[in-house]
Amino acid sequence: MNITSYIQANEQRFLDELFSLIRIPSISAEPAHHADCLRCAERWRELLLEAGADRAEVMPSQGNPLVYAEKLVDASAPTVLVYGHYDVMPVAPLDKWTTPPFEPCVRDARIYARGADDDKGQSFIQLKAFEYLVRHGQLRHNVKFILEGEEEIGSPSLNAFLMQHRELLRCDVILVSDTSMLASDLPSLTTGLRGLAYWEIEVTGPNRDLHSGHFGGAVANPINVLCEMLAKVVDGEGRITIPHFYDDVEELTPDERAMIAAIPFDEARYRQAIGVDELRGETGYSTIERNACRPSFDICGIWGGHTGEGSKTVLPSKAYAKVSCRLVPHQQHEVISRLFADYIRSIAPRCVKVEVRPMHGGEGYVCPIDLPAYRAAEAGFTEAFGKRPLAVRRGGSIPIISDFERVLGVKTILMGFGLESNAIHSPNENFPLDLLRKGIQAVVGFHLHLQ
Amino acid sequence: MNITSYIQANEQRFLDELFSLIRIPSISAEPAHHADCLRCAERWRELLLEAGADRAEVMPSQGNPLVYAEKLVDASAPTVLVYGHYDVMPVAPLDKWTTPPFEPCVRDARIYARGADDDKGQSFIQLKAFEYLVRHGQLRHNVKFILEGEEEIGSPSLNAFLMQHRELLRCDVILVSDTSMLASDLPSLTTGLRGLAYWEIEVTGPNRDLHSGHFGGAVANPINVLCEMLAKVVDGEGRITIPHFYDDVEELTPDERAMIAAIPFDEARYRQAIGVDELRGETGYSTIERNACRPSFDICGIWGGHTGEGSKTVLPSKAYAKVSCRLVPHQQHEVISRLFADYIRSIAPRCVKVEVRPMHGGEGYVCPIDLPAYRAAEAGFTEAFGKRPLAVRRGGSIPIISDFERVLGVKTILMGFGLESNAIHSPNENFPLDLLRKGIQAVVGFHLHLQ
Repeated sequence: MNITSYIQANEQRFLDELFSLIRIPSISAEPAHHADCLRCAERWRELLLEAGADRAEVMPSQGNPLVYAEKLVDASAPTVLVYGHYDVMPVAPLDKWTTPPFEPCVRDARIYARGADDDKGQSFIQLKAFEYLVRHGQLRHNVKFILEGEEEIGSPSLNAFLMQHRELLRCDVILVSDTSMLASDLPSLTTGLRGLAYWEIEVTGPNRDLHSGHFGGAVANPINVLCEMLAKVVDGEGRITIPHFYDDVEELTPDERAMIAAIPFDEARYRQAIGVDELRGETGYSTIERNACRPSFDICGIWGGHTGEGSKTVLPSKAYAKVSCRLVPHQQHEVISRLFADYIRSIAPRCVKVEVRPMHGGEGYVCPIDLPAYRAAEAGFTEAFGKRPLAVRRGGSIPIISDFERVLGVKTILMGFGLESNAIHSPNENFPLDLLRKGIQAVVGFHLHLQ
Repeated sequence: MNITSYIQANEQRFLDELFSLIRIPSISAEPAHHADCLRCAERWRELLLEAGADRAEVMPSQGNPLVYAEKLVDASAPTVLVYGHYDVMPVAPLDKWTTPPFEPCVRDARIYARGADDDKGQSFIQLKAFEYLVRHGQLRHNVKFILEGEEEIGSPSLNAFLMQHRELLRCDVILVSDTSMLASDLPSLTTGLRGLAYWEIEVTGPNRDLHSGHFGGAVANPINVLCEMLAKVVDGEGRITIPHFYDDVEELTPDERAMIAAIPFDEARYRQAIGVDELRGETGYSTIERNACRPSFDICGIWGGHTGEGSKTVLPSKAYAKVSCRLVPHQQHEVISRLFADYIRSIAPRCVKVEVRPMHGGEGYVCPIDLPAYRAAEAGFTEAFGKRPLAVRRGGSIPIISDFERVLGVKTILMGFGLESNAIHSPNENFPLDLLRKGIQAVVGFHLHLQ
């Protein structure tokens, strides 16, 4: 049976299996969901065995366990290590979801649920392609799976796990479905990712909340100070002001800029899709350059003082922010992490106490497009989508991709099938059924062409 | 029986009565406590009748009702209108309270509870001074009471109530206990207050929370923009940058500055009490000038994006702040409210949508120190505290004081007995028993000297 007929014949079972994963609210950022993470890992183990793995285990780590599985068919053949993650992002604001995030629902030929795309849906594509090859006797090389449960909180335990199990995880190439394409009719393969550094800042003013009438004007307000400091991090040209921040940033070459300029991009449609009248970013760069090849600084969260109803006139004791920088290849997140903390401390006035706590980080990544595995992925995409995929660098971060290269010494192929409209990390995350089908077909193609 | 013996003989009853008021969580800012506000008004009505009022009523307004009471002894004698408020501030953060906010507890000769000072404790002083004078046949002039239930949310219904009941509330002077003294051994009368203007700002970026990797650097982050805008409101010299903001501010005269400089002030002790290493404010002014006679800008609350556990990499759709300016006499809050909104709109970049919603406001106030009623208050204080009180301008706002002057045409005497250490608007609000006693004595003295 060819792959398209196989998908058609098994579609209802595929959905039932995928939904059984989605229904488990495996939110790694929320300790209350720890048991759900364990349940989700166990469910993956079962599905991997059913799909054809010879061995599948839930393996402990310093944090959430990882799921490992393998099917070793030929010691002289290459080994592909498939990586995915079974944890998902938090779901707030819950009132923005049309249907509950953990009750998958198919509407307009899309699966709506947290994890429908990132990364349960996409990892499931890998699982079903593997199943097809095993059941049809077409798997000629070795396949290993590793699914982690802490990707959305920065994979804090993965590095140690890789070091400890370097032998077990030995492979020739890593295959990951956790990225997105330019559009459903513009298939693309991700050849670069941005790095990430993330911090929490705590500003302490007075030792208690004060009456803003009795003290306002004479005592520094920690929220005012926090805003002042954060406003200084980016200048009027959209450049980050942290000293030495750009030292390791490699400027785009004219060739690279020409390739980026050739990517179809409709700014009006882009603006309309996210509902903004104007874009904003670093002077001298295009939108795609800004969100994929240039560093950025975002305040991901801020809070302090009276945030409830009414108008409390308070000069608060504390103010907090969660902030992050997206980094580009060659910027080292640990270096940037220090530079940022030093900078904030250097601009912090003595009238407050400031603490900068690094949360997590990772380096960026670039994949050469002449790699045989990249060519196999390209061929798989071409068969499934009917056109050759573009090679593009993307703005997101999968910090562990650079860890794989450093620890395991291999490159990663990013065969992602997401779309911007899939709203990952947002309310109403979704995944089109059509991409689930084409994704499975493309991954089958990858394996067949790799041989 | 003289007043000190009377207080001693009745102290337990006084505390029981005051605690019956405090136990009612009459938080005007929180709709869930609406019924408590009604209960608290009713309790005041009972206590006013028991203390000796001939008439006491709970009267409707557009918002929470007001309590009115009177004892009219001589149509040819002057009339004193006592104003207070029965509503209290919210209590968050609840975990910072040593004992629950609405279970009054006496420790170290202080009453700990929300409202122990502001304004249940202080209004109670007025009630008990009145009771003493009535019961001992020493009330020679007329006394009216008005207690409102919306002071902590800016008295939105009071103005209309004053207009509607101008005849009923007719008086020669208004007496208010809702301010504080310099220190327990530095009795003082408040002769000036700052005004207030308060706004909520809502900044909208994209129409949903976005993945900061896919969009960061190309799409404006509403939290970044909010911080940038708020950081511009005050310059490096601590001056507010809103155009025309200082137009109506009267500069302090050399005489006024000399009087302020004569007020004992220990900066090290002040800093230590609030736990800061350094003070900060407008260049060229002393701390007391800054927090009492100069305008200020405080961010009272801020929120947006991911504020929970962990590190969500989000470029949020919304950011909010609650901000306020303290104003000085002659600045009109409605003018300032417009200037601020215009200014924020003028600096808002087109990449976001910004809404500025005025919440409430009020003018500042100055009381002449040669007023006979001021002299009577001074005499009452001198008898109770053993030294003549200083005349000082304070930084807080009681916006309705200027409304009284405008609508009823009379001045207000601010006989307040609070202390900074009473922590009003903060966790562990408290009121020293000693000041409760001296306060009653001082108010009795006021009435006797006014005759």
